[in-house]
Amino acid sequence: MASTAGPEIERLIGLLAKLPGLGQRSARRATLALLKRREQLLDPLADALAEASRRVKTCSVCGALDTQEPCAICSDVSRDSTLICVVEEVGALWAMERASAFRGKYHVLGGLLSALDGVGPEALRVGPLVQRASDDGVREVILALPATVDGQTTAHYLADRLAGANVSVTMLARGVPVGGELDWLDDGTIAQAMRARRPA
Amino acid sequence: MASTAGPEIERLIGLLAKLPGLGQRSARRATLALLKRREQLLDPLADALAEASRRVKTCSVCGALDTQEPCAICSDVSRDSTLICVVEEVGALWAMERASAFRGKYHVLGGLLSALDGVGPEALRVGPLVQRASDDGVREVILALPATVDGQTTAHYLADRLAGANVSVTMLARGVPVGGELDWLDDGTIAQAMRARRPA
Repeated sequence: MASTAGPEIERLIGLLAKLPGLGQRSARRATLALLKRREQLLDPLADALAEASRRVKTCSVCGALDTQEPCAICSDVSRDSTLICVVEEVGALWAMERASAFRGKYHVLGGLLSALDGVGPEALRVGPLVQRASDDGVREVILALPATVDGQTTAHYLADRLAGANVSVTMLARGVPVGGELDWLDDGTIAQAMRARRPA
Repeated sequence: MASTAGPEIERLIGLLAKLPGLGQRSARRATLALLKRREQLLDPLADALAEASRRVKTCSVCGALDTQEPCAICSDVSRDSTLICVVEEVGALWAMERASAFRGKYHVLGGLLSALDGVGPEALRVGPLVQRASDDGVREVILALPATVDGQTTAHYLADRLAGANVSVTMLARGVPVGGELDWLDDGTIAQAMRARRPA
């Protein structure tokens, strides 16, 4: 097999197979599709990856991914900076934006507390969140975390940590199905959960 | 949405969504995975694509994809050059090699005859095949085409065109399930079909 297609093609297949949703077989089909459509697909994808690698940065304020620093959302003065929505990962932030249910600012935790996986508060962006929440302007922190054990553990921990700051801490309403990951939800459910948010 | 992630990220998502097996949603997940694992995944993939674009060429003899010209299989003197196996596309060639059922040379047609899609013989590499088959050394041409209407139409057409050349023309045995595409078959079925090939 390795000698058939050459090491360059095998390397490409191997890397594509590491993407979520692609296995070895679909990576081969993707590789063939790329090699057959060089100008339309392969070269633009190589460029887009190189450009993303060069230009996309993690926002130092909220932890989102963008080419601006601070990111477009943090820089947007038309957004309500008295509201901070805490999400697990950038994927959840994108899902929230697609639902158009929130016009405040975000804070990306970078994960969830997990006793099983040994993830403690120091591994997450908890300190910067408490600091932001303690700012004069902020009046509400919305914990938009998944309705899983780890998500709810993290929400309770954050509610405790934020008790000292002069903000109300709320959670998404139980419109989120139990066990549901935020970025797999439909927009309507996210929007409903945002509207019906309640004190933590 | 577009303003959230920035045009660079949107472009990457859009290009990944064009790969077979990835939709818009899985392309977003893949993009996040890439941006999170920059050194391990994003940069190597960008390099591998650029390198494949620069170095992988279509073999002028058989039509396979390789960085050598002629390709590794055409250049391999240990392979039996009296046998030519005709396949629809490079994916089928790779599947055949994975099955390790054939140690001759290949000829990639580049498609199948299709009245419906308006694909005629001039769109395929038929002329070069007839020329190769007319060489003194070649004694058998194996038509390893899918067991679909277009595959069988193409096989019959090629058998007619090759009647003038002094070669026996064979087809894969009916171990290939009806409607089956070659590169989705398991290795055992391909190997069996190769062993039991019969005159066209």
